[in-house]
Amino acid sequence: MTKYRLDLAYDGSGFRGYAKQLSLRTVQGELEDALARLVGGELTTAVAGRTDAGVHARAQVVSFETELEIEPERMIRSLNGLLGPEVSVTAVAEVDDGFHARFSAKQRTYRYLMDPRPSRDPLLRHMVWHVGAGLDVEAMSLVAQAVVGEHDFGSFCRSMEGKSNVRHVDAATLEVSEGLLVFWIEANAFCHQMVRSIVGHMYDVGRGFASGHDIDEVIAARDRSTVATVAPPHGLTLWKVTY
Amino acid sequence: MTKYRLDLAYDGSGFRGYAKQLSLRTVQGELEDALARLVGGELTTAVAGRTDAGVHARAQVVSFETELEIEPERMIRSLNGLLGPEVSVTAVAEVDDGFHARFSAKQRTYRYLMDPRPSRDPLLRHMVWHVGAGLDVEAMSLVAQAVVGEHDFGSFCRSMEGKSNVRHVDAATLEVSEGLLVFWIEANAFCHQMVRSIVGHMYDVGRGFASGHDIDEVIAARDRSTVATVAPPHGLTLWKVTY
Repeated sequence: MTKYRLDLAYDGSGFRGYAKQLSLRTVQGELEDALARLVGGELTTAVAGRTDAGVHARAQVVSFETELEIEPERMIRSLNGLLGPEVSVTAVAEVDDGFHARFSAKQRTYRYLMDPRPSRDPLLRHMVWHVGAGLDVEAMSLVAQAVVGEHDFGSFCRSMEGKSNVRHVDAATLEVSEGLLVFWIEANAFCHQMVRSIVGHMYDVGRGFASGHDIDEVIAARDRSTVATVAPPHGLTLWKVTY
Repeated sequence: MTKYRLDLAYDGSGFRGYAKQLSLRTVQGELEDALARLVGGELTTAVAGRTDAGVHARAQVVSFETELEIEPERMIRSLNGLLGPEVSVTAVAEVDDGFHARFSAKQRTYRYLMDPRPSRDPLLRHMVWHVGAGLDVEAMSLVAQAVVGEHDFGSFCRSMEGKSNVRHVDAATLEVSEGLLVFWIEANAFCHQMVRSIVGHMYDVGRGFASGHDIDEVIAARDRSTVATVAPPHGLTLWKVTY
């Protein structure tokens, strides 16, 4: 058996998320169909980040094993020929047996784009949340600063019964770039809807529905009901996975 | 009568160009329909750049007259409510009677995006020409340098019988930015398909089908048949109009 690592970019707009679901269009579903045609038989894949419906990826990582030896350059060309324009295989490499796209990952980086200009930008409408003008960006930055470190993110997690919500956020910054608000966040891992809940709360702080100075209490509450808003998926992109 | 200037952004993907055409979907057609509903009667508009099918705009400029006085902020909101997500009115202002979106314009700036990475970026596929790896970017830059100044651009124009192809290019540069090749060009005006023909020739130079050192001869030929390739429309955006 040979183990492969595959790097993947996708526009999540037309998919019901990454993870395979019966009779729904998913990235994993299309990728595994393409792989099955390439290797001539079913196979299962592991993934670094199970992105939700509508969320994009610039550098998702997938791993799988197959008995076939396929030259990486040929695998890229063949898969990109089989996949539509919404999914692109950007790299393929043979990896050690011990490599696992999910369990070997040390850190994930996500980017969330907001547009604080009065009018929408039609060219970016599939990847930017149009929040509009008048947000208090300084107050929003307090939220970014406060989530750094190890916390129980129960207030920001759509929780799974009995699972821990403790995560370590290595960095979180809110930047202004070419007219957009760009939120970057790096952590060892993320619980479900964590980035979108942080951005949603940031938005509530920006428009004065919540105070940026109460953010430590919001985190300490570990209660999902303290965070009222979940940002829409289309502003979010899985940017990088570090091993 | 009151004269208005209206700034417009659009994703050209779904339109058969800016200019109105009977029973085809065009930006002008949709805009004038929306304006007709707003002012309660037909009106005609002038435009700075009649972009081709598939070409985008970040800051197209339109002017028109109407007997109605409408507060600019309200006009923006109303038009954006009537127009779909592919077209966005970004600014409205009352202007002098003498203002004309096309004839008062002093300079137009276009941007053309190329992606020289091996794999496509699905999120940018509607606005970037995927040229792939291996292009000679230095040779391509010679083309950008050579078009600056006043020239008869007959080699780069889909010519209109009897019309002059002399244009003054104020600046043209090819930059590498975030992995993309970005071509910027500013001129007093552009003949039909001029930017896409320059980029097409640049691409032929980059892949060795033409020499960057022959560019002065290509310009001097003033013959459309010397330029073999016209770049596809989706990489092109009308970036700015200066008055």
